[in-house]
Amino acid sequence: MVVDIDLSRVVDDSYQIHIGELPTIEIDKKVAIITNTTVSRLHLKTLVSKVKARDLVVVTIEDGEQYKNLKTIEFVLDELFKNRLDRKSMLIAFGGGVVGDMTGFVASIYQRGIEFIQIPTTLLSMTDASVGGKTGVNNSYGKNLVGSFYQPKAVYIDPDWIDTLPSREFSAGVAEIIKMAATLDGEFFAWLERANLYERSDLIKAIAKSVELKALIVAKDEKESGVRQFLNYGHTFAHVIEQETMYAKYLHGEAVAFGMVMANRLALDLHMISQKDFDRVNSLLERYKLDLYYEVNDSERFYEQFFMDKKSSYGKINFVLLSGIGDCRIVSDIAKDQVIKALNR
Amino acid sequence: MVVDIDLSRVVDDSYQIHIGELPTIEIDKKVAIITNTTVSRLHLKTLVSKVKARDLVVVTIEDGEQYKNLKTIEFVLDELFKNRLDRKSMLIAFGGGVVGDMTGFVASIYQRGIEFIQIPTTLLSMTDASVGGKTGVNNSYGKNLVGSFYQPKAVYIDPDWIDTLPSREFSAGVAEIIKMAATLDGEFFAWLERANLYERSDLIKAIAKSVELKALIVAKDEKESGVRQFLNYGHTFAHVIEQETMYAKYLHGEAVAFGMVMANRLALDLHMISQKDFDRVNSLLERYKLDLYYEVNDSERFYEQFFMDKKSSYGKINFVLLSGIGDCRIVSDIAKDQVIKALNR
Repeated sequence: MVVDIDLSRVVDDSYQIHIGELPTIEIDKKVAIITNTTVSRLHLKTLVSKVKARDLVVVTIEDGEQYKNLKTIEFVLDELFKNRLDRKSMLIAFGGGVVGDMTGFVASIYQRGIEFIQIPTTLLSMTDASVGGKTGVNNSYGKNLVGSFYQPKAVYIDPDWIDTLPSREFSAGVAEIIKMAATLDGEFFAWLERANLYERSDLIKAIAKSVELKALIVAKDEKESGVRQFLNYGHTFAHVIEQETMYAKYLHGEAVAFGMVMANRLALDLHMISQKDFDRVNSLLERYKLDLYYEVNDSERFYEQFFMDKKSSYGKINFVLLSGIGDCRIVSDIAKDQVIKALNR
Repeated sequence: MVVDIDLSRVVDDSYQIHIGELPTIEIDKKVAIITNTTVSRLHLKTLVSKVKARDLVVVTIEDGEQYKNLKTIEFVLDELFKNRLDRKSMLIAFGGGVVGDMTGFVASIYQRGIEFIQIPTTLLSMTDASVGGKTGVNNSYGKNLVGSFYQPKAVYIDPDWIDTLPSREFSAGVAEIIKMAATLDGEFFAWLERANLYERSDLIKAIAKSVELKALIVAKDEKESGVRQFLNYGHTFAHVIEQETMYAKYLHGEAVAFGMVMANRLALDLHMISQKDFDRVNSLLERYKLDLYYEVNDSERFYEQFFMDKKSSYGKINFVLLSGIGDCRIVSDIAKDQVIKALNR
């Protein structure tokens, strides 16, 4: 199965996302695989057997969101220079969202930009990080605050990597699938309520549908000035949660699940959704073992942190809130009291 | 005088270069001026009086090519986050090429890209760095090895800043003007032989002509896959010289002057130019007090360093050599012996 990402109206790039068993990839270039310790241990041998390159090097980074910083970027750049990759060399991002975001960022700045392809190994990175060209790292001020927009040459999604994925990470990936459905496609959401993503055939359908939906949005709005903001449903809250917990306690998808429930609480208070809509999202999240409620200790401080988010500008916070299952709106004029109230639930 | 940089065929960006007295610039955004200690001392007050922004902060970095590294980038990013610049804020690069290249790079990665304008204060940055969208920093492996292609929203060239420019820096700027003429425009070169760039009216003409020539080349080839490589005349050598001397002994333009003479020596040996052409370039360089000969201590090591340059790929070195005054060619199949011979002169 192939999904075409056509960005020709916004940049001169477009690329294909291949979904299915990883084919042999022939690259007549010097190639560096960027991966982490965990993925390397489990799957590097398999990948190396499938990549036929002119010359192949592997750069391994530590596993975890806490390593998604400029220090690691410098380490990877250094390894590439040591191994004499040049402007015509290519990177392969082999791992989850952290590896993908950092490899894309390195590719965008190494010698002012070289090509890269993505081979995501987690459900989250298959459905989310593999489409959209967002690259970057976190810093002490927040998540993904330094980076670039840079498109891969191709993405290969092989659902078999998921067999070794811990169950928490699987659930975190499902959270982003639920997000796509809840904000953009009521029919897809209803199908998810009937489907069982623990079965491979349903999972493949869900990945393909998520990728298609995201591709559609990104093609309309690569740089996130319009509809792409819809994808931030739950994320305004999630970023603060991840920061408060030092990117260590929760997986990104788990924080997004909390964030969606928080956003829905706000939407419910504002009479944008019904109690039934609120419950439908919650029960789908619960079915995939996602926790629903994050306890906010200091709601004033939590609120303050919104303003460090890239999406806030001129002191305005843009909340993406559901206006029904499969529909959403950007709301930027919510009174602070109202938000604090939702945070304190 | 206004030069239009039309990159609409390569990216969705295009911008104007204003040449003449700096007008009052009104920007209804939060603005950060990035400058260095020297320019700040001499001219910051003047600039601040001309920028009417919603909110204005100044970030000052050390003066010198040795500070053009990722550490300084991190410092600047940190200051911007501290001052809460958001995605809609704007940077102003106020200084020479180092400030311009680093500010452009920061603008390209701060929250995945914010706008910036350039106000170059050195002759070199007015004629060279202000056009083309190349941003970046050096590292221990070489010059400008980490960076991005990122276009400013506007460039303001006010030749009056040059009044306080040390004479060595003036000459270094003239070297790039001579480079533009020698490679691209024989008529311009002949005019330079008659002109006196120490006179302001001739200087303005020369800046405008250089900017126009460079804009023409960049519009044809933003990402440097074709004709833009012509602009690297002298630079393949210059980058090695700068690296050998730790970016401290020579100004970039001074190294380029050495590099042009080295390239011409090679072209002369290969019978691509005449002794008369060789002498014409030398005498123009000498008139502006530029040294002609760099002594290579270890030509084997010097040769080895070519392969770390971004422009070399698959072990091939692309030399840009004159094939007459106002004409040049890329030659990539020169025998090592031939190059070593030219280096040893």
